[in-house]
Amino acid sequence: MKIAVFGTGSVGQAIAGKLAQINHAVMIGTRSPQETLARTEPDMFGQPPFSVWLAQNPAVQLGLFLEAARFGEVLINATNGMGSLEALHQAGEANLNGKVLIDIAVPLDFSRGMPPSLFLSNTDSLGEQIQRAFPQVKVVKTLNTVTARLMVNPNLVGNGEHTIFVSGNDSGAKALVSGWLASWFGWKDILDLGDITTARGVEMYLPLWLRLWGATGSGLFNIKVVK
Amino acid sequence: MKIAVFGTGSVGQAIAGKLAQINHAVMIGTRSPQETLARTEPDMFGQPPFSVWLAQNPAVQLGLFLEAARFGEVLINATNGMGSLEALHQAGEANLNGKVLIDIAVPLDFSRGMPPSLFLSNTDSLGEQIQRAFPQVKVVKTLNTVTARLMVNPNLVGNGEHTIFVSGNDSGAKALVSGWLASWFGWKDILDLGDITTARGVEMYLPLWLRLWGATGSGLFNIKVVK
Repeated sequence: MKIAVFGTGSVGQAIAGKLAQINHAVMIGTRSPQETLARTEPDMFGQPPFSVWLAQNPAVQLGLFLEAARFGEVLINATNGMGSLEALHQAGEANLNGKVLIDIAVPLDFSRGMPPSLFLSNTDSLGEQIQRAFPQVKVVKTLNTVTARLMVNPNLVGNGEHTIFVSGNDSGAKALVSGWLASWFGWKDILDLGDITTARGVEMYLPLWLRLWGATGSGLFNIKVVK
Repeated sequence: MKIAVFGTGSVGQAIAGKLAQINHAVMIGTRSPQETLARTEPDMFGQPPFSVWLAQNPAVQLGLFLEAARFGEVLINATNGMGSLEALHQAGEANLNGKVLIDIAVPLDFSRGMPPSLFLSNTDSLGEQIQRAFPQVKVVKTLNTVTARLMVNPNLVGNGEHTIFVSGNDSGAKALVSGWLASWFGWKDILDLGDITTARGVEMYLPLWLRLWGATGSGLFNIKVVK
């Protein structure tokens, strides 16, 4: 399948790398490929610059948001939450319409220090904002509740016996995404929370996730819903 | 031990009932015992009036917030979050100072319909507000991430193999509360998240909890942290 991944950070890299590894055709979209490739410094999380990663993943293409959106049959939003709407506008509504958009972005605001707060929450969510801005796109919020490495390899902890959530208005799109979560990455326990307003729940879980990271000393954990 | 439980709702009833059952001396505090006992209608969640419950739990005493605070060696805040600070002020700072206050209250705002939103979140929490208002009280936030029945009986689901969190500034108080969670109720997996600011995490988990309730059709569930 031809898949577009918007965003060059650790989430975009993890997703694009894994999808290329299992032989999907992957293009990463970014605002300016030239600027992205020109960066030589580690990012704010200490990750090596994107060009280093791309050299290790030569099957992955890099293009403008617009080019990636045209390329992809399925779209994945792994941009910084503060820039997600702008990135999707650059991708062009006509190139998004009718497609499934897997939204992993989070509304984290790092501008007020650590731990980050949310710039949007409670009675709205980033998932809903994206769905409202692009009503013809099938937005499915998922994967934002785990660290990038775990998104594409849930078996890294607890033999994969933990829960991932899907939120969205289109049942067919959620069924497709749930199937891909299983076949691409190996997710076993996939829970449909309901319509896109349930993205508030998974986005507002982030402050607890950040504190769990602090308390356990590692981002390699997830929660399992026990009934 | 002499324990004060502030609040007559389902959480106060579950906690007070269980503590009395295991032979603690329990007084529930309320704004007006007369008004509480005079209610004959079910509450907003369809629970029977308090007087029905009290008749079934005759060992539990009922008094003013002030009387309960004077009575209790340990204090438990199970009030409606919107009224928590007022209830604690009525209890009287001098009657709270130096004691451990287990804070279970949640900042839910039901005034804008269902599902409720939070009246406080992101860069503050109810746990922090209470700690700031009563700096000499040892506030430990816990139990607010599960439904009342599960608070006092974690074995109701998954053989008790799921996680409860504690947040607070006083390590000794957190150790005491963790011991009580185990000995009073049977909690096995108790995770110290850090200082009272981590109450933001467990309070902001509520919107996800509400959606999980909706998706699973029951409040009888919890999450387990899988590492």
